[in-house]
Amino acid sequence: MKNELLKEEAGERLDDLQCNNLFIIQNPDKFCFGIDAVLLSNFIKVKKNGHAVDLCTGSGIVPILLSAKTMAKRITGIEIQKDIADMANRSVKYNGLEEKVDIINDDISNALKHIKHCSVDAVSVNPPYMKDTTAIKNPELPLAIARHELLTDLDTVVEVSGKLLKENGRFFMIHRPNRLSEIFASLKKNRIEPKRIRFVHPYIENKANLVLIEGVKGSGVWLDVEPPLAVYKEKNVYTDEVLRIYDR
Amino acid sequence: MKNELLKEEAGERLDDLQCNNLFIIQNPDKFCFGIDAVLLSNFIKVKKNGHAVDLCTGSGIVPILLSAKTMAKRITGIEIQKDIADMANRSVKYNGLEEKVDIINDDISNALKHIKHCSVDAVSVNPPYMKDTTAIKNPELPLAIARHELLTDLDTVVEVSGKLLKENGRFFMIHRPNRLSEIFASLKKNRIEPKRIRFVHPYIENKANLVLIEGVKGSGVWLDVEPPLAVYKEKNVYTDEVLRIYDR
Repeated sequence: MKNELLKEEAGERLDDLQCNNLFIIQNPDKFCFGIDAVLLSNFIKVKKNGHAVDLCTGSGIVPILLSAKTMAKRITGIEIQKDIADMANRSVKYNGLEEKVDIINDDISNALKHIKHCSVDAVSVNPPYMKDTTAIKNPELPLAIARHELLTDLDTVVEVSGKLLKENGRFFMIHRPNRLSEIFASLKKNRIEPKRIRFVHPYIENKANLVLIEGVKGSGVWLDVEPPLAVYKEKNVYTDEVLRIYDR
Repeated sequence: MKNELLKEEAGERLDDLQCNNLFIIQNPDKFCFGIDAVLLSNFIKVKKNGHAVDLCTGSGIVPILLSAKTMAKRITGIEIQKDIADMANRSVKYNGLEEKVDIINDDISNALKHIKHCSVDAVSVNPPYMKDTTAIKNPELPLAIARHELLTDLDTVVEVSGKLLKENGRFFMIHRPNRLSEIFASLKKNRIEPKRIRFVHPYIENKANLVLIEGVKGSGVWLDVEPPLAVYKEKNVYTDEVLRIYDR
């Protein structure tokens, strides 16, 4: 029964998430989650019995991890690509999470057609990082859509989040530090105040290559910049903190 | 002759900057420079033969250090408090820097009365960090003025900087990370794009308590977040990098 959910002939594989006996179906030709999704899932806080929405959910990795890491009552993932949303749906079923996690196959711009305005406790997103024009596009379309702002962009992601969130609801995003000034401008425009950020450095002596951001809708000004997170302590060896994050 | 420049009876003292045989006159009742000014001076880049302006210059610590650390042709400090500007002037004379460094005693809002619009290569500032209302004010007025936004504020500092700077001129500021979203908003409003930031943490496992920011007037969007700077490696022991910065 469970094996019927996996389409091996289409190139799919089943990965053990090493967390609460959860698994995920992935397709290396389309997209496999990276450390970004793991760091984001670990950074997100959802209040008990709250409703969390994960935009650009891809394979559903964040909602599936949040089902174990938080006390959320409901977690909704939204994914525009039909076959990837279908794969996420099958992962939800594989893990028996249908009561808790639902996947919507639509453009995030249509989120308000599915979810009530100002009703969500936490919105998370691991969006495409790169501007449509900043890099050579990945010739494999599903990968390109995940990496480049082809079907959505930063402003849209933040605007939709602002509309979905309750007053004082929380917004969580992982993105590239290079775009931080745009991110702050977009948050401001949508009344989400950045409250907590954490920079991720490949090694502690490197520039940051990722940033985790928590914002609160309608909040006053006060930002905590958390201690830096280094991924590696030496070549191919994760730092103790990253190992702990993967273990949780 | 030199000793006539020091007013010991008023509580002033002469400190050796351990840098190019430079000294500074300070008055502990009014303000003594801290690590902020040293980190800022080390972060600033001024092109050869350029004109640098240091707003809220206080005792003139940043212009005096920049005279040794950069190839600037002229460095102008602006300080609103008469007796502190006078002290800065005497430090300039003590070091024989009158040809290179000038101190203007005025409100930074009047900077354009002294310095030509869009003419400056680099503006630096270590402004008062705290909003007028956010903390108990220091009962000693000169100290309160240095710490709280009593006589100037973030928006004014950035607006004046934007007016002074040439197109592609560089802006350097040290401030509190808690105010980063306001800083970014103010920079954007004044067409200064943040290009390089560095967070300073008391210990590497602490939240950041200072942030160094470099912006470029009229530049495109792209921000580098440099490796974090930790001040201490153990109690009362500076990290090697901070020792190197003090030694330069």
